[in-house]
Amino acid sequence: MDKIGIEEMIRSLSTLRTEKMYLKDFFHTWKHSDDEIRATFEVAEILRGMRENNISSRVFDSGLAISLFRDNSTRTRFSFASACNLLGLEVQDLDEGKSQIAHGETVRETANMISFMADVIGIRDDMYIGKGHTYMKTVAQAVEDGHYDGVLEQRPTLVNLQCDIDHPTQSMADALHVINEFGGVENLKGKKLAMTWAYSPSYGKPLSVPQGIIGLFTRFGMDVVLAHPEGYNVMPEMEGVAAKNAQKSGGSFSKVNSMAEAFKDADIVYPKSWAPFSVMEERTKIVETGDQQALKELEKRCLAQNAQFIDWECTEELMSTTREGKALYLHCLPADISGVSCEKGEVAASVFDRYRDPLYKQASFKPYIIAAMIFLAKFRNPSEKLLDLLTDARKRIY
Amino acid sequence: MDKIGIEEMIRSLSTLRTEKMYLKDFFHTWKHSDDEIRATFEVAEILRGMRENNISSRVFDSGLAISLFRDNSTRTRFSFASACNLLGLEVQDLDEGKSQIAHGETVRETANMISFMADVIGIRDDMYIGKGHTYMKTVAQAVEDGHYDGVLEQRPTLVNLQCDIDHPTQSMADALHVINEFGGVENLKGKKLAMTWAYSPSYGKPLSVPQGIIGLFTRFGMDVVLAHPEGYNVMPEMEGVAAKNAQKSGGSFSKVNSMAEAFKDADIVYPKSWAPFSVMEERTKIVETGDQQALKELEKRCLAQNAQFIDWECTEELMSTTREGKALYLHCLPADISGVSCEKGEVAASVFDRYRDPLYKQASFKPYIIAAMIFLAKFRNPSEKLLDLLTDARKRIY
Amino acid sequence: MDKIGIEEMIRSLSTLRTEKMYLKDFFHTWKHSDDEIRATFEVAEILRGMRENNISSRVFDSGLAISLFRDNSTRTRFSFASACNLLGLEVQDLDEGKSQIAHGETVRETANMISFMADVIGIRDDMYIGKGHTYMKTVAQAVEDGHYDGVLEQRPTLVNLQCDIDHPTQSMADALHVINEFGGVENLKGKKLAMTWAYSPSYGKPLSVPQGIIGLFTRFGMDVVLAHPEGYNVMPEMEGVAAKNAQKSGGSFSKVNSMAEAFKDADIVYPKSWAPFSVMEERTKIVETGDQQALKELEKRCLAQNAQFIDWECTEELMSTTREGKALYLHCLPADISGVSCEKGEVAASVFDRYRDPLYKQASFKPYIIAAMIFLAKFRNPSEKLLDLLTDARKRIY
Repeated sequence: MDKIGIEEMIRSLSTLRTEKMYLKDFFHTWKHSDDEIRATFEVAEILRGMRENNISSRVFDSGLAISLFRDNSTRTRFSFASACNLLGLEVQDLDEGKSQIAHGETVRETANMISFMADVIGIRDDMYIGKGHTYMKTVAQAVEDGHYDGVLEQRPTLVNLQCDIDHPTQSMADALHVINEFGGVENLKGKKLAMTWAYSPSYGKPLSVPQGIIGLFTRFGMDVVLAHPEGYNVMPEMEGVAAKNAQKSGGSFSKVNSMAEAFKDADIVYPKSWAPFSVMEERTKIVETGDQQALKELEKRCLAQNAQFIDWECTEELMSTTREGKALYLHCLPADISGVSCEKGEVAASVFDRYRDPLYKQASFKPYIIAAMIFLAKFRNPSEKLLDLLTDARKRIY
Repeated sequence: MDKIGIEEMIRSLSTLRTEKMYLKDFFHTWKHSDDEIRATFEVAEILRGMRENNISSRVFDSGLAISLFRDNSTRTRFSFASACNLLGLEVQDLDEGKSQIAHGETVRETANMISFMADVIGIRDDMYIGKGHTYMKTVAQAVEDGHYDGVLEQRPTLVNLQCDIDHPTQSMADALHVINEFGGVENLKGKKLAMTWAYSPSYGKPLSVPQGIIGLFTRFGMDVVLAHPEGYNVMPEMEGVAAKNAQKSGGSFSKVNSMAEAFKDADIVYPKSWAPFSVMEERTKIVETGDQQALKELEKRCLAQNAQFIDWECTEELMSTTREGKALYLHCLPADISGVSCEKGEVAASVFDRYRDPLYKQASFKPYIIAAMIFLAKFRNPSEKLLDLLTDARKRIY
Repeated sequence: MDKIGIEEMIRSLSTLRTEKMYLKDFFHTWKHSDDEIRATFEVAEILRGMRENNISSRVFDSGLAISLFRDNSTRTRFSFASACNLLGLEVQDLDEGKSQIAHGETVRETANMISFMADVIGIRDDMYIGKGHTYMKTVAQAVEDGHYDGVLEQRPTLVNLQCDIDHPTQSMADALHVINEFGGVENLKGKKLAMTWAYSPSYGKPLSVPQGIIGLFTRFGMDVVLAHPEGYNVMPEMEGVAAKNAQKSGGSFSKVNSMAEAFKDADIVYPKSWAPFSVMEERTKIVETGDQQALKELEKRCLAQNAQFIDWECTEELMSTTREGKALYLHCLPADISGVSCEKGEVAASVFDRYRDPLYKQASFKPYIIAAMIFLAKFRNPSEKLLDLLTDARKRIY
């Protein structure tokens, strides 16, 4: 995208209503209007375009972005760091210890103590059903109160870097990738996306990716199919969100218990392992009791159950049944690749290999999506600000 | 504070003598003149005012600030990171391992090796009596020599983020909070402050907070009362500093062995646990021998001794005996709150709850105090530099 | 160096051909032309001069530098952080876990995932023969491919912060120190440098320092002598590089099995412990099998072997046999100092003490060397860019 293209996209952005994002958080895509979702895509593209044209989008002369990862993460950590650095914010990690499930008052105090000069807080807390989003809301309320009470000079914006319910920076990056591959969001209408469970030799993978995908892609008039073995349900509320979105957008949302059926004539496939919602609930309860023995037994039982569905693998044969045998293969990475990272996994090595470049491109949108979420929360009139940056054209590399 | 207010405060600052702070360190408040203490408060307020008016106070285009925490710390770490970021310095952590007590030559070499491009070094080393300040002096001497010998292009400024003797960034932030609450430092004259020991279910909390408080607040013409059970003495030298300050400032410094007596008609109360000086000395000797058994026995003995004073708690009843029942409650946080963070602790939950906002505000001054200490060490003519920043009015957020 | 001096050095730089460094990596000094080596020295000196004159050399308005240390490191970590900060890059650490020996596909994926906004990647991987450099090449190829395939907007530059073969940021910093001590690279012609093994109570120190030194200093027309006990050979290929360089530069490269012989009339001595190449090979194989018992036996055997050469120590007596008894003593630090950091080590305490300042100065060049390597990889016309910076004369400290 050249400067003319960037300027055009800024004009398009100026027609969208984003004022409700100003000084607010980004938790779940379905809490945001179509304008807001579209604006996030456009700001991401504009920031990417500016960077490719060596135009600085550093809008903070100083400022802190706090990262709080309650789970190991290299990719999301680097995406967040990249996004913040692009805008001029310095990342400071808050390391609370992974295993802790913090309580109300402590969270409130800590949230204020770290936020005196914080412009952004990015949180990843995806491990326990009923916990992650609740924790983020507690932090958000704490800094809201802190700002109201005059403790905090500014109210930091929260960005959900993955919770137990949604993974908006992932699904939005995935969507922006798809939009680019299909040449525009309008071209997604009527396309079939198969979000399907796949076998993995591990258990307990979060639900936030499949939930985030069905919750977002149903907005684009697509035929979204959720496929999984019986019992591997996602949260019922999320199926409701998907159904409602589909109805509104003129698409469809359906469920099947067969990977083959989901793949049939699909334009896009997203085969990925997750743990059943009921197992995630059970696990959370066990973790709260601290019963290591029960945790081991749960794992053993779940792995045995998973083993029944070892044929839920994204093979060449299955891929050949998709639209012209050329469906776009998506994954949030890292994938469990059969014969590479494990004996049997989510995807055949040859399929994964063939889609390596698109997969890496898919991931490349995440830093820009995060930066866009921050940008839209920090500027009441984002298009004006972006036009200023484009006009100034300060070089990123001198 | 608006721009006019900031400009007025800069003019006030310009009348103070701060040239001896230039290129020097900040170790103990009592090593600094009244002008220097006042200048630190004023620069902190000015930097805060500028930030609130979206004026950048980034005075370093590049530069490193090294943090060296020989003890876990979230709050001080974030305060230091915030202060450095506000001025344009990037924090780089030096992680030497907590348990090590480093020796002279190693310290000298390491201090030089990390300082080739360091503008600031912030150190927290509060655990062992006779060690923390000594360590900081060793580092300061090493970089002084390094600069003199042409090894270091610049001499980094040291900021004491808590040692075994003083905790100047805490006591100065506390004081600035009190000054704001009472509407000016001149209003502190004749006010009664009770720095009092309080019960905690742990042992071994550092002495630097009570010592820092009696060492600083006695400068403002206040009646400072230090209260603790018999035997829970602070360092004798520090009582001397407090007495001398009080005499000079026209206030008073006294000691009592009753929390009730200290609270009576107090304008400000600071109930907080600490370990007796003699115990801290004993513990340091044991740690040096590495005798884990002896350490456990010491802990057991001290906890048993503490248990005798479980009624040293800041209750509603005690609070009602303070001036109009409305003394300002201070704490450096986190507090041991009865029935919340422990069964019985330093303060009743209802008291703590009532003072939550002021407590958070108290903490909010620390980043600005640290930034002010750095600023005064880096600019020979701080008021001129601040006036330049105000005139330029470069935006912090674009 | 004043501004006139800086400008003169920039003019000198403009006569050197560096276009092949543009957008490339820095792995081994011997892969670079004489012009490129000289340009690296000059850019380092220019950046140092500019910093000393409070002129900012921040050429990145935003940007990430990724550090990947597969081994503990304080000094190199700080040198890299300093260099990056000087240029405006923010360091983000990638912590993969020290013990892992990562495999091809994982490396490729991770390299891309962290590089979407990375301008530089600094890697230290020196522990295992045949691994470190191979790993760096894999990363370099991955980001090369990523850039070619449109995944990465820019191709990050790799800087070798120490591999199993070379330690170019060390040897280049050492050389720049020597050049400064001797008043110019032209004065090194005919000077004798003794790179000699020395006793240490540990085993397994990397070969990259002695190899880097003989691979670089032989380029300056010097008489480079490599001394070690029989069997403590470095990699044969590296002796070949040294011999070839010496022939080309009009100097010499020779090997002796006596520390005394090497020191005789030497102008520069570099006594330092390392493990024999054959031991390093054996150790790598054992580590790959994970046989802890075999690893312990190897250590025991090697320490016993080392003990036979406990008299390979840089003593006052040996120093007195050097040119006028005044050879320049070099070490990459930290040194094993007899009676200080160990009972018997590489160097006598009095020798080390006498050379403390020069040793610290030696180390002080490393951040500038790293910054120069990055600078030359990022600008096609480095002298023009440096002249712009000098002319702008933006202040580093406001």
